[in-house]
Formats: sequence, structure tokens, C-alpha cells
Amino acid sequence: MEDTKKKYAADLSSIRDAHSRISSFTHKTPVMCSESINAIAGRRLFFKCECFQKGGAFKFRGACNAIFSLPDAQAAKGVVTHSSGNHAAALSLAASLRGVPAYIVIPRNAPKCKVDNVVRYGGKVIWSDATMQSRESIATKVLQETGAVLIHPFNDARIISGQGTISLELLEQAPEIDTIIVPISGGGLISGVALAAKSINPAIRILAAEPKGANDAAQSKAAGRIITLPETNTIADGLRAFLGDLTWPVVRDFVDDIIVVDDSELIEAMKLCYEILKVAVEPSGAIGLAAVLSESFRSNTTWNSCTNVAIILSGGNLDLGALWNSYMK
Amino acid sequence: MEDTKKKYAADLSSIRDAHSRISSFTHKTPVMCSESINAIAGRRLFFKCECFQKGGAFKFRGACNAIFSLPDAQAAKGVVTHSSGNHAAALSLAASLRGVPAYIVIPRNAPKCKVDNVVRYGGKVIWSDATMQSRESIATKVLQETGAVLIHPFNDARIISGQGTISLELLEQAPEIDTIIVPISGGGLISGVALAAKSINPAIRILAAEPKGANDAAQSKAAGRIITLPETNTIADGLRAFLGDLTWPVVRDFVDDIIVVDDSELIEAMKLCYEILKVAVEPSGAIGLAAVLSESFRSNTTWNSCTNVAIILSGGNLDLGALWNSYMK
Repeated sequence: MEDTKKKYAADLSSIRDAHSRISSFTHKTPVMCSESINAIAGRRLFFKCECFQKGGAFKFRGACNAIFSLPDAQAAKGVVTHSSGNHAAALSLAASLRGVPAYIVIPRNAPKCKVDNVVRYGGKVIWSDATMQSRESIATKVLQETGAVLIHPFNDARIISGQGTISLELLEQAPEIDTIIVPISGGGLISGVALAAKSINPAIRILAAEPKGANDAAQSKAAGRIITLPETNTIADGLRAFLGDLTWPVVRDFVDDIIVVDDSELIEAMKLCYEILKVAVEPSGAIGLAAVLSESFRSNTTWNSCTNVAIILSGGNLDLGALWNSYMK
Repeated sequence: MEDTKKKYAADLSSIRDAHSRISSFTHKTPVMCSESINAIAGRRLFFKCECFQKGGAFKFRGACNAIFSLPDAQAAKGVVTHSSGNHAAALSLAASLRGVPAYIVIPRNAPKCKVDNVVRYGGKVIWSDATMQSRESIATKVLQETGAVLIHPFNDARIISGQGTISLELLEQAPEIDTIIVPISGGGLISGVALAAKSINPAIRILAAEPKGANDAAQSKAAGRIITLPETNTIADGLRAFLGDLTWPVVRDFVDDIIVVDDSELIEAMKLCYEILKVAVEPSGAIGLAAVLSESFRSNTTWNSCTNVAIILSGGNLDLGALWNSYMK
């Protein structure tokens, strides 16, 4: 792992710097365990509850690191992003803590609760179409008009370092873990988590969990190059992005495998989170549990030695309207 | 608080003993804070997350203390209880840890998830009608047949001492609190919490939160004697019991006030727990938050000085069928 910084977007040093920068703003989220779920999984699981992070997702770590890294003059003009939601809320909150504007380009199909979070934290919402092209072109327009700086949701070294702070906490909270299962979308989370964790403990296994309907990362690993998909189809609205040029090299070199699960497995894992852990996760947030319980993981003998498995419950922002409607009858 | 034990069912010493007895079995549940919810409440709130306790509710503390207090010969014959659910699951789990049988009399109208918990933890389910009379008479029959010992859900000194262990943890985790808001039903939880907390800090305020449709405790406080109701009507299925002869003296002497909320306030508080805290609580579990947000609490100037308020999120066992059905479409 020497000279990591030269080859990859972050290293243990940049991640430790990020932790110093953000830890007075972020929650040190708890690691929860359940013997009932251990019995179901046949392993000891350690849930790092990033759904309890400020803004309801791990995204606040990266956003905070990015915003508090900016020179004053640049920060004053504000920040821009396009995001499926959690990064947007996180950036809005981090910007408000620094007292600078956050311009948030949000696709019209984003879940209402995620938009509500942006508004709650003082972000300025600018709507786009659902395509990445529309999101990016509108963001560029805002950049030109305001002089604000773009903070990409994942393909950004500051974001990757911020997300990596999870590993610093996790390895201190549960030093016995031998494996970390991480949701994968654009790869910002898993890049930071992998770089930090493998620097501290090179033997640790890093496994990605990805929905079948957006399995670009699994395809990319198989092909040895970034693959994007013409469309995605999964309820995991936070896991529809594709890898970027900063995250792909980390995923290629440090992610030991990618476990693909279908939406029905995801929903079953969500149920366990609510009904046994009592933690309100969003579909994307439950995918690590879905992976460890999946037949493809259980039947792969390579992973028999994964006995102490950390799972990152990445977020909890979810429209629960159906639940409340059932009470209003 | 001298000679408390002579006058009341528990004291700081019996509660400390309980903590030593059970703490290797129980979770030290986290205390969570949210600046978003603080802003809504206009105070600093500290959520003691007993929904993360084993069995999904605080009840495991008392059940564990009761079962591990039994002499071996008595324990071997097993335990019996009638319960609306959380005590039943807790007793099943505690009995299985000691390796003794738990006979659980459950009313037919108990939520399915609570019955599932009893079965999961190895309890033997025996059905009764919904009335307390039916529950008690069937429990007596089981007692006679098995020689097992009755562990009442709340009117039991061992149970009260066990629940009081919450205060020992809470005052260590959040020493700045000046108030604790506790759900009230039969009074076992609030009795233990009040006796421990007021022994450690006599200035601390203990407020009960009670649903309007089962406000027997508020009526009892007003009348100066135990009042029971001909029927109850609330979605808070865990808060339908009436005070007992061991809990009433504690409620009478150590509970500073009882805040009554209606079911719509309860549902709003649940929503905040899920959508902001990301904690899956049952309706009964959210009542402390409902109380602190209620107009009757906010407008009572006596409570203006309650600035650091602990809220016990007492349980999280809830049928979430409506939520999952919405995904299955």
C-alpha cells in the first residue's frame, strides 16, 4: 500500500486528515449486533449504522470533508452537485454548517423524503430530468452562473477520503472483523472504506454488494474496465450510478469480490433490519445484509472464512408513506 | 430516599444488584441525539434506545433479573406470564438463556410480530381471551399444572429493579439530563426508572407519558388512588395495562406529572423516529417523544426548565406488513 496516494485518489493519510477535519461535525455511528441475525446468517455480523449519520446517510462524511477543505474565497461562492438524494442532503447540511450556499440539481424521480431533506438543510433545489446527462448539463449551467464549485457525489478525492473515515471508526469499534461488506454504486464509499481498511489491515476482505438491476460494477470487474449500462432497474435508488475514473482503480485493485443480489433479497434484508435490528434503512442501505444472506455468498466456499463480517448500513432515507397511511385508516 | 426499600418495591441497592446480575446478558443500549429533532422540540433530547434491547424492548431487563434471581430448584420448573407481548418475548429469551421453560399466556389480539418473537425465543404459547380476567385465570391454571413460578409483567419487585437499570446507564451516558420522560402502562418501567434516577439525583424530573385512550395513571394521580378503566382505546398496544399495588406508590410519590397524548400525536412522533432518527419504534415506544412535542407540555410553564430531556424509546416490536406490502406490488 506504499505510494497509494500517487496511484489512487486517497490514502490512509488523507483519510486520517479527513477524520480530523470532520469528526466534530459527524456522528461516530454505533456498531450494532444481534444474536438473532447472527443465527440466521451463521456468522457474527457487525452493523455500522451510517443511517444514524447526520442527514441519514454516510454521505455527510464526504460532503463535510469536501466543503471544509475549500479555501474561504472558493467556499463563499457555494457548492453545486447533482445527486440521487443523500449526497444532496449531506452537501446542503455541510454547506449550511460552513455558512455557504449549496445548489442541488435533483432528478424529478428522486424520493420525496430525500428532497425534503435537502430543503430541511437549506439547500437550493434545481430540478433536472432523470438522466445523468441532464443532471450534469444543468449542474454545469449552475456552475457557470454562480462561480460555485462542483462537488461530485463520488468521483472526488475529498469525498472518497471522507467516506473512508468509516473504516477508522469501524476497525476501532470492532477490531475482530475480517470482512467488510459495502454497498457499491459510483464507488465513493467502497473506495474510501477499502483504502483505509486495507492500509490498516491488509488481510481484511472488502466485498461489494450490488443490485442485479444495476450490476455495472460486477460487469466492470469481470471485464477489467469500466462498464456502464443503458438503463438500471432496481428499488435501490441510491445504487444506480456507475463507477468513475477515480473509483474504478480502487474497485479494480482492492475489492475482493462483488456480490449481486436481486430486489426481493433486498426487501427481505430490509425487513430484518426493521423487525429485528429496529433500524430504519432504505433499500440501498440493506444491501450488505442481503449479500451476506444470499445463496451465492453462502455457497461460495471462498467466503467460509468470513466469520466476523462488518456490514455498512449506508442510509435510512425512505418514503414510508405506505406505513403511515395504514395507521390513518 | 432513606428506607426506600421498606416503603417501595425496589431501591438503588436492589437496582444495582439487578444490573450486576443482568449486564452480561443485556445490551447497554445507545443514547442517540438529533439536532433536527432538537430544533423541532426546542430542547435537547436524549433518546435511550431500548428498542435495540434484546427482544426489541426494555422488558428483557426485568425478565432477566427475575429469572436469574430464582433459586435453581424453582427455576427448573419454569416461569409463567400473561403479557401483551414484549414481556412475553423477553421472558422467553431470558428463560432460554437459563435453560428453563417459559409458559406464555397471550391474548388472541396481540400483534403477530410479538407472538413471533415469543416463538423465536422458545416460549410455549398458550392463548387466552383479551380480558385481563381470562389472562390471569389461564395463567393460574398453568401454574397449578406445572409448578412454574408466575412472573408478572410489572407488579413484581424483581421486574421493577430490572427496569431501573436503564437509569443507571442513562445517567452515566448523559449526565446532563434534568428530566426523563417514560411511557406508563402498568408502571413497572417508570417505577424502576424513577427510584434509581431520583436516588442518584433527587432534582431530576420524572414525567410519565400516557395515551388518552388508556389514561388510568393520570386519573389515578388526580384521584390519589388506583383507578382502572372499563375499557381502553389506543393504538399503543403496550400501554393498556393498569397500575398495580407495587407500582402505584412509586408513581404516586416520584412521578412529577403525567402527560396525556392522543393517538394522532403518537403517530406523528413515530414518523419522526423513523424518518429522522431512523429508529423503528412501536407506537408505545414513541409516546415520550409525542409528550415532549405535545401542546400541553409545551404550554406548561412548569416545564420550561426541562432543557435536557431523556426520552425512553421503550420498544420496537411492530407489524410492518403495510410497508412490505407496498413493495410487493
